Amino acid sequence: MISDTLFTELSSVLEGRLTRSKSDLDQHGQSETWFPLTPPEAVAYPETTEEVAALMKLCHAHDIPVTGFGAGTSLEGQTLAIHGGIVVDFSRMNRVLRINDADMDVVVQPGVTREALNVELRTTGLMFPVDPGANASLGGMAMTRASGTTAVKYGTMRDNVIGLEVVLADGTIVRTGSRARKSAAGYDLTALMVGSEGTLGLITELTLRLHGQPEAVSAAVCAFDEMGPAVEAVIATIQIGLPMARIEFLDADSVNAVNLYSGSDFPLKPHLFVEFNGSEQAVSEQVDLFGEIVHDFGGSDFNWATKPEDRTALWTMRHHAYWAILALRKGAKAVVTDICVPISKLAQAVEETAEDIKASPLDGPILGHVGDGNFHAILLVDPNDEAEIKEAKRLAHLMAERALKLGGTITGEHGIGMGKKSLMIEEHGEAWAMMGAIKAALDPKNILNPGKIVP
Amino acid sequence: MISDTLFTELSSVLEGRLTRSKSDLDQHGQSETWFPLTPPEAVAYPETTEEVAALMKLCHAHDIPVTGFGAGTSLEGQTLAIHGGIVVDFSRMNRVLRINDADMDVVVQPGVTREALNVELRTTGLMFPVDPGANASLGGMAMTRASGTTAVKYGTMRDNVIGLEVVLADGTIVRTGSRARKSAAGYDLTALMVGSEGTLGLITELTLRLHGQPEAVSAAVCAFDEMGPAVEAVIATIQIGLPMARIEFLDADSVNAVNLYSGSDFPLKPHLFVEFNGSEQAVSEQVDLFGEIVHDFGGSDFNWATKPEDRTALWTMRHHAYWAILALRKGAKAVVTDICVPISKLAQAVEETAEDIKASPLDGPILGHVGDGNFHAILLVDPNDEAEIKEAKRLAHLMAERALKLGGTITGEHGIGMGKKSLMIEEHGEAWAMMGAIKAALDPKNILNPGKIVP
Repeated sequence: MISDTLFTELSSVLEGRLTRSKSDLDQHGQSETWFPLTPPEAVAYPETTEEVAALMKLCHAHDIPVTGFGAGTSLEGQTLAIHGGIVVDFSRMNRVLRINDADMDVVVQPGVTREALNVELRTTGLMFPVDPGANASLGGMAMTRASGTTAVKYGTMRDNVIGLEVVLADGTIVRTGSRARKSAAGYDLTALMVGSEGTLGLITELTLRLHGQPEAVSAAVCAFDEMGPAVEAVIATIQIGLPMARIEFLDADSVNAVNLYSGSDFPLKPHLFVEFNGSEQAVSEQVDLFGEIVHDFGGSDFNWATKPEDRTALWTMRHHAYWAILALRKGAKAVVTDICVPISKLAQAVEETAEDIKASPLDGPILGHVGDGNFHAILLVDPNDEAEIKEAKRLAHLMAERALKLGGTITGEHGIGMGKKSLMIEEHGEAWAMMGAIKAALDPKNILNPGKIVP
Repeated sequence: MISDTLFTELSSVLEGRLTRSKSDLDQHGQSETWFPLTPPEAVAYPETTEEVAALMKLCHAHDIPVTGFGAGTSLEGQTLAIHGGIVVDFSRMNRVLRINDADMDVVVQPGVTREALNVELRTTGLMFPVDPGANASLGGMAMTRASGTTAVKYGTMRDNVIGLEVVLADGTIVRTGSRARKSAAGYDLTALMVGSEGTLGLITELTLRLHGQPEAVSAAVCAFDEMGPAVEAVIATIQIGLPMARIEFLDADSVNAVNLYSGSDFPLKPHLFVEFNGSEQAVSEQVDLFGEIVHDFGGSDFNWATKPEDRTALWTMRHHAYWAILALRKGAKAVVTDICVPISKLAQAVEETAEDIKASPLDGPILGHVGDGNFHAILLVDPNDEAEIKEAKRLAHLMAERALKLGGTITGEHGIGMGKKSLMIEEHGEAWAMMGAIKAALDPKNILNPGKIVP
């Protein structure tokens, strides 16, 4: 509990940017999914690394839990302060500090959103491609090891964060990584931090890898009668080495939701949304080859969108699919699943999941990043109906067990948070205790986002 | 110290595959570079994970240091048992366990060498591209976070190890990662293990990412009058997004050594060795574009080698450059430096290093992986001349400090081992203590490769 004296002390460290106003607490106690409102005791708005360090020092001295908050777009309750304490909102640390054109990297504060970064980069010929759909903050994306539609070509946050500044549990400021493109200098602390969901430190600065804006981009949508051949077409494409920039799968239910929400008129069949980018010549070659593959697997003809506005419309539709699906049922909240399997097992995993959902009273359209073997069933529930939440969790558990049985993981990109902790032992076995040992070593008082990830 | 009783007990666990023969101890007490002979007390040859686990349990109970050994090709004394105890030689755990074509991954034992793996893969259309030059074991390559000539396109071991089986200090067997292409399920223990040089566990199995064998490959050599324009040509190539498969720099001294050793007759100037791969059409486009760039920066004409035997000859020359340089001085050993800087700083780093070496009595040809900003000066010393070793260390220290000043790292790919530990505090500051805390949490008795990496 934060005493009034401590509140005053913390507030002075932050020059008054610490609040207990109900609206602020409630706003930071919400999540995008079905978790109940969990307001923290106070919300801090630091503006500098030194403020974050001073805040942590005080919280460390007084055993106050601290939970980081970027844009609040995580899906597993990562930002909920379930043991109370302070939520640190990084929205005021939102500056792009240095763009290094020649080295194709950028140094940013954690509150910069991916869209804001790409606006700043527009005239440089460079871009930051990782795209989880939501306009998440880069600090948050690093902390959940986010990925999304472009991971098939550009990788996840694991591949695109090259260095960090982090404030540790006791307020120590450390730097991990460097601006070199590779290093063999000891343990990879950057990779350890990425995906740690704020349980090992608070990120106060990120060095990110940038990529060249492609000369040409071509996107398209195509329908299949069945999901199996759609996935097989994608496997064949990967195997011949065609570098897809995005390759997304939507089942017929998802397509129906998108049609209703965005006014499109796609046939109610499984679809692939695909994008190629590169030089004019390379894209043209890739589009032709992909067209042949899709034809061989019985897919429909494509309409290729090469104009930026058409592509934007297409990917906006895809990014709004989550909201489109939520809109299928008034007042519904979502239990969002997120398994990832070896791509050879993807058709089986999706088909068996679809059967489970069909046999259940709940609706759960399926869509995902088929090039990574990662998909989501968006299970629609009445958040006040415990039986429905229980049923959704049962379905989610079946999916997770299936993922593990097939050599995959319980979460491809959403992370653990509150939603998946009980499954960690099933995925990691004895390695889960290893994570616990690392957490205990770096945060012995367990004040950094306590209750998340580790035993 | 290993008592005779303990030796017998350990030996029985390994069905007799534990030896104290002088030749075995000496062979495992050598290194590729200037470090003095450091024989362990015994050498173990396990054949299964269970044997490794049983060995670790016993060593844990008796506080016996354990150091892993793959092919013995590391350059910083990683495999030297400087606190005595047992060296575990993985050469008998050398089976390729499962090739998963559709998922483009492979499961191998740690003693498989990269060349042996690629021989097994030859007919699959797939390959494992990470190529540090030496025919290193894959377990060893993971442990030093190896990279080499192809990292510019395919990344390092960090990017190509997707899962591990590891025996921890107390003999517990854990699995990290999965066969999914990405995961957000907790701390990235795979990345923590990769580059840990055997200080956190012994790798007993690896799951590696494979890549398609390219349809077409084209390699070439070209000369520049100065090093600066050569590096600028490479920067320009990266910036327009041309995907080079390899891009290597050799200074005039290195070229001289290669000529003497391999019988080639390259002009005594700085050279780039380059390779493009992909579809016929893409390679042809890339070769043309690169040719234009090199021409703009004043490089010589290329002779493109498209026949496999010509390319093999070219890369064999490059891979033998280390031996070629050693052969410049009879009886010499090498102090091999390995800094990596942001590529915009590479010309400056190489030029200043060359000046230091010119002003020194030692010879030190320079070569490196210019696409990564990573280069080596091979400092030739008489291993019995302490003054020379001291001078080489002084030069190496200057290089490391320069790398840090320029935003880089003290080692791009060779790792820390014995050679660079004193520089860790300079690179990592407080983050080095974090590494120490992780080590203490996972190996509280400090029996895994003690004396390496951490404080």
